[in-house]
Amino acid sequence: MAESVMVCEVGPRDGLQMATGRMPTEVKIRWIAALAGAGLQEIEVGSFVPARIIPQMDDTDAVVRASLRLEGLTVVALAPNLRGAQAAYEAGAHRVSIPVSVSEGHSRANLNRSPNEQVAEVARIVAWVRAQARPMEVEAACSTAFGCSFDGVVPEVAVLAIAAGLAEAGVDGVALADTVGYAHPAQVRSLVRAVRGEIGAKLENLHLHDTMGLGLANALAGLEEGVRGFDAALAGLGGCPFAPGASGNIVTEDLVFMLESMGFSTGIDLDLLIAARDILAEGLPGEALHGGVAKAGLPRTFQAAA
Amino acid sequence: MAESVMVCEVGPRDGLQMATGRMPTEVKIRWIAALAGAGLQEIEVGSFVPARIIPQMDDTDAVVRASLRLEGLTVVALAPNLRGAQAAYEAGAHRVSIPVSVSEGHSRANLNRSPNEQVAEVARIVAWVRAQARPMEVEAACSTAFGCSFDGVVPEVAVLAIAAGLAEAGVDGVALADTVGYAHPAQVRSLVRAVRGEIGAKLENLHLHDTMGLGLANALAGLEEGVRGFDAALAGLGGCPFAPGASGNIVTEDLVFMLESMGFSTGIDLDLLIAARDILAEGLPGEALHGGVAKAGLPRTFQAAA
Repeated sequence: MAESVMVCEVGPRDGLQMATGRMPTEVKIRWIAALAGAGLQEIEVGSFVPARIIPQMDDTDAVVRASLRLEGLTVVALAPNLRGAQAAYEAGAHRVSIPVSVSEGHSRANLNRSPNEQVAEVARIVAWVRAQARPMEVEAACSTAFGCSFDGVVPEVAVLAIAAGLAEAGVDGVALADTVGYAHPAQVRSLVRAVRGEIGAKLENLHLHDTMGLGLANALAGLEEGVRGFDAALAGLGGCPFAPGASGNIVTEDLVFMLESMGFSTGIDLDLLIAARDILAEGLPGEALHGGVAKAGLPRTFQAAA
Repeated sequence: MAESVMVCEVGPRDGLQMATGRMPTEVKIRWIAALAGAGLQEIEVGSFVPARIIPQMDDTDAVVRASLRLEGLTVVALAPNLRGAQAAYEAGAHRVSIPVSVSEGHSRANLNRSPNEQVAEVARIVAWVRAQARPMEVEAACSTAFGCSFDGVVPEVAVLAIAAGLAEAGVDGVALADTVGYAHPAQVRSLVRAVRGEIGAKLENLHLHDTMGLGLANALAGLEEGVRGFDAALAGLGGCPFAPGASGNIVTEDLVFMLESMGFSTGIDLDLLIAARDILAEGLPGEALHGGVAKAGLPRTFQAAA
């Protein structure tokens, strides 16, 4: 039996918020259905943020509700604060993902709060969620964990402090995010080890960007350190509106190709995944679609993990 | 002291032979000088092949001779046969690189010989070179070592047989080439280990293509197995005229960024390397230039290896 790796598609959230165009709600829902049909079991479908800041996300409530009809899918929504988390709960999301910048500069620009103030907000969110009738997972992502375009180097000890604070706040899982794509493989190995030393198995996921072309090498480093959860975006969409210079997420198709080739089972059908690019292209005409596997075609030597 | 990794720039050979345009000889020479000026210590400057097959390479003799004036540079030329190796020697190349396809299909298409016939040709080349007054290194590259677009899967045992034959023929070094970009990191680890078990330290170099987006992940896998030599092409130029579907080489700038970030010294100045793209763009207008670092700019957290 092949070991499993969980790939969480974040294109409908991290990808669309950066797109110059705007994908119609109806196309978003068809696209998410196609992604789920390709075998993706976790999809971050949108974010509950003020529409004046990211207008592309103002239909997240409708998108979450539609996505809940897709059997077996874990529907994830991002929320930067308690109000957003409450909206995610009201919509019925299975999981809410809270960004927590490790660096002061990014935290101020993205959230208008200090990192510690955001950890306190996460604690409020956890307390509120746990008091509700229905369970909802709370995940926190340590943004700029590998460097910041405002503040530069982010010390490992700062990441450890935030990760420990989040674990103490009671989140279900913590992700490490290379928000601007500055990470290198040795750094990924080092930080994953250090954070695991601090919070153990609560470290669940890496969120990597491919700014410097090192995205999959960084994913490999994380994989070799035992990480079994990765965010990725179809066609490498994405970026961060508050992190100048950041480019797209690692490409879901290429990540799945790498994992399956190496014998890790993702549950994803690569042909169906590649076909889902057509809906993306339809909904965002003119947007650059990245990725090697989709352009070259699956090599004839490819075998999915058993 | 940082450990060293040798990056061999193959853009002037592997890159230009696939380009739709043709770079004028004078620009080639300026480009190679800029690459050497950025700190590259090995450059494959061209190939001695019939001009009717690859007309972009018909000035290789002049390019080799001009490159010999660049102090400290190891000037490498590709040659598919004894006649080409003799031409490389006459021009004064420091090293000749001989491609030896492991798969029958690619060998026939690229060289019009079987793999074993090409190993015998390498033995003839080594014998001839060793009988000359001046020393010239002979390197052989096992093409399609990770899969073939004609023959599909290339068994590890076939690579081992060719590598052993090349070592027996007396070459100075052997490279493993993922000619079509089918490799994945677990395969790189496995094949590097197996080939090293067969020929030891004669295994010197990996030649990787980024067809599926896995190029740097594959380089990382090789690096972690102890490989300390990598081919790469500025802006990810390249491909193989006889390997349908192959795309460019791994991007030199991104590879150097990864290596230096991880603490491996390459002797290369990244700013000067990125500046050399301007000459490439001038000599090949309209050619797509790839690479993350050049597009995003070096992150402010970057530190070259000491």
